[in-house]
Amino acid sequence: MKNFKYELVHEDAKTKARLGKLNIFGKVVETPIFMPVGTLATVKFLSPEDLKKIHAGIVLSNTYHLWLRPGEKIVKQAGGLHKFMNYDGPILTDSGGFQVFSLADTRKINEEGVTFKSHLDGSTLHLTPEKSIQIQMDLHSDIAMSFDECIPYPSDYEYTKRSTERTIRWAKRGLAVHNIDDQALFGIVQGGEYTDLREACAKELAALDFDGYSIGGTSVGEDKPTMYKMIEDAIRYLPQDKPRYLMGVGAINDLLNGIERGVDMFDCVLPTRIARHGTLMTSKGRINIKKAMYADDFTPVDPECDCECCQNYTKAYINHLFRTKEGLGMRLMSIHNLRFLIRLMEEARQAIREDRFKEFKEEILASYPFDERGF
Amino acid sequence: MKNFKYELVHEDAKTKARLGKLNIFGKVVETPIFMPVGTLATVKFLSPEDLKKIHAGIVLSNTYHLWLRPGEKIVKQAGGLHKFMNYDGPILTDSGGFQVFSLADTRKINEEGVTFKSHLDGSTLHLTPEKSIQIQMDLHSDIAMSFDECIPYPSDYEYTKRSTERTIRWAKRGLAVHNIDDQALFGIVQGGEYTDLREACAKELAALDFDGYSIGGTSVGEDKPTMYKMIEDAIRYLPQDKPRYLMGVGAINDLLNGIERGVDMFDCVLPTRIARHGTLMTSKGRINIKKAMYADDFTPVDPECDCECCQNYTKAYINHLFRTKEGLGMRLMSIHNLRFLIRLMEEARQAIREDRFKEFKEEILASYPFDERGF
Repeated sequence: MKNFKYELVHEDAKTKARLGKLNIFGKVVETPIFMPVGTLATVKFLSPEDLKKIHAGIVLSNTYHLWLRPGEKIVKQAGGLHKFMNYDGPILTDSGGFQVFSLADTRKINEEGVTFKSHLDGSTLHLTPEKSIQIQMDLHSDIAMSFDECIPYPSDYEYTKRSTERTIRWAKRGLAVHNIDDQALFGIVQGGEYTDLREACAKELAALDFDGYSIGGTSVGEDKPTMYKMIEDAIRYLPQDKPRYLMGVGAINDLLNGIERGVDMFDCVLPTRIARHGTLMTSKGRINIKKAMYADDFTPVDPECDCECCQNYTKAYINHLFRTKEGLGMRLMSIHNLRFLIRLMEEARQAIREDRFKEFKEEILASYPFDERGF
Repeated sequence: MKNFKYELVHEDAKTKARLGKLNIFGKVVETPIFMPVGTLATVKFLSPEDLKKIHAGIVLSNTYHLWLRPGEKIVKQAGGLHKFMNYDGPILTDSGGFQVFSLADTRKINEEGVTFKSHLDGSTLHLTPEKSIQIQMDLHSDIAMSFDECIPYPSDYEYTKRSTERTIRWAKRGLAVHNIDDQALFGIVQGGEYTDLREACAKELAALDFDGYSIGGTSVGEDKPTMYKMIEDAIRYLPQDKPRYLMGVGAINDLLNGIERGVDMFDCVLPTRIARHGTLMTSKGRINIKKAMYADDFTPVDPECDCECCQNYTKAYINHLFRTKEGLGMRLMSIHNLRFLIRLMEEARQAIREDRFKEFKEEILASYPFDERGF
């Protein structure tokens, strides 16, 4: 038996939000959880110690990127991702599917898999469900993903149906070759914007022996109501006793709306990416630290934040580090934005525990000035 | 009375190497000491906590750079450099003299000071001995430097003599306007390669009320014997009870030869600069981490090193971080090279304590494969 188990601790009285405990091979995290992205076996500018300090429970790493550099064989020789990057917390890997469809050039897809050109050197690569699972087993993450096709939005019904059925067949092929006991494997629900396709996909995957379920194909350009419907259409048919992971979503409103609908896990590169461009999330809304008004502002980025950046430095110093392109600035800003979302999750869990998630969500959405990206 | 005092703890039996304790306004460091350079109020990629972990005693920051960005008034408003950058260890600032002569364009020098163009935007700037001291008082470092002219090598005797005499007059003008009690002020011995000019300069400055003395104008292209002679020609006339600082020197052989001649303090950007290009100093000599042979080398950069990089990561991981241009790699490599030199200083102090500095130096010089830069 795999030592991987989701325990539903408490369901919010008024929404589908749920508080859970996820035992990941002896490492326990509470859900809902936001997972920082460490694309190339490093969350950009952060050390594993920094990750511990911000209470990052699970870290995500990208199979496609690690396959290309340094190659999964190097990581396997190192003793797996945990040893390679010196992170002993839980690590989740994606399947490479999203990167193949978003980064790589001139792809050709058929039943067998996808042929495409590397975004690094243009060389021809071939990824199949089996290959994705093999790479992930070599990387030895704690949680692996099935290989799926990420279709663009909008896609017509016929194409979405054919693609979703193939993604299900790919999920089965991946499941068939996955053979290590200390790695969980998730199925990914696709189906685009079509309720019946999401339903069919969720039902078929739920009947299989996956350790958890992901919701894919959102955040690809659809409007918010459509995205939230996609989530509902998938979650309705997913088992209560397994974790649900909404892939690639990290905007504050999306996180809260996802939690409200029963999502347990999220990841997104946006908090760290916008940090590196000087955009910081605070309890008073977003600020752009490069503005001249911060050059002599000797208050913390967010006085309510407990992170290394806010506890030790002023906006004036961060403004200076950003304008002079210093690495410490990148690090402190990344730490802050990640900690901001991780604290949001901590507060969300507390709200669920106290049956007031609805009020919590509405209070934040009402008070936080969002831009078009939801930050 | 200034709470700034050099105590000579022990002199090596066979050389002029000396073990000292420098009390810097209540913060005590042992000498000889190597000081990491934090040009823009940050040692590139390192946090103050990282600096503590590698036992960096004193950190150097550059007056010229901070004058331009963020401006000394911002730092003053922040409460000084310590508060601005959140470093509570001792901070030394240079005078800006070296940068004016190495970075800035089209300078014009006269008795009053130097007029030149900013290396950032080409705007016309004017720096005088008084202005340099005013900036440093505003930055509120623990140790400030007199403004000096850094002449190129070689320079003819007549020019060197005129320049050195002007540097002495500049030192006196700086001393006259320096008026804060919790900042030490050092005089800088110039004189080029000319023994009599070094002697005259050292003697005249030694007679003035400086808290310590720097040796300037080395490491500007002269050969090693000339450099070591410059050091000897200056130190001979400097008081025993004040610290001596050899500016801008950090190559292993120069550090050891400097210590042997009675130098107490050193700084250099090279360890961090070469780290950012993948060159790491180890007990077996330099390595370039980007070489393909390290891609699957799962041993530490230096098994004898106690730094965060060597204790937690392999060459394979650092090679990966370097090749993928990840900030964590820059940080870990910088930490390693700095710790390497700081450990070398710790060992040098122990050798002096045990009257075996000569043997210590010869052992290292014989075993360490140097390149033309002395690394």
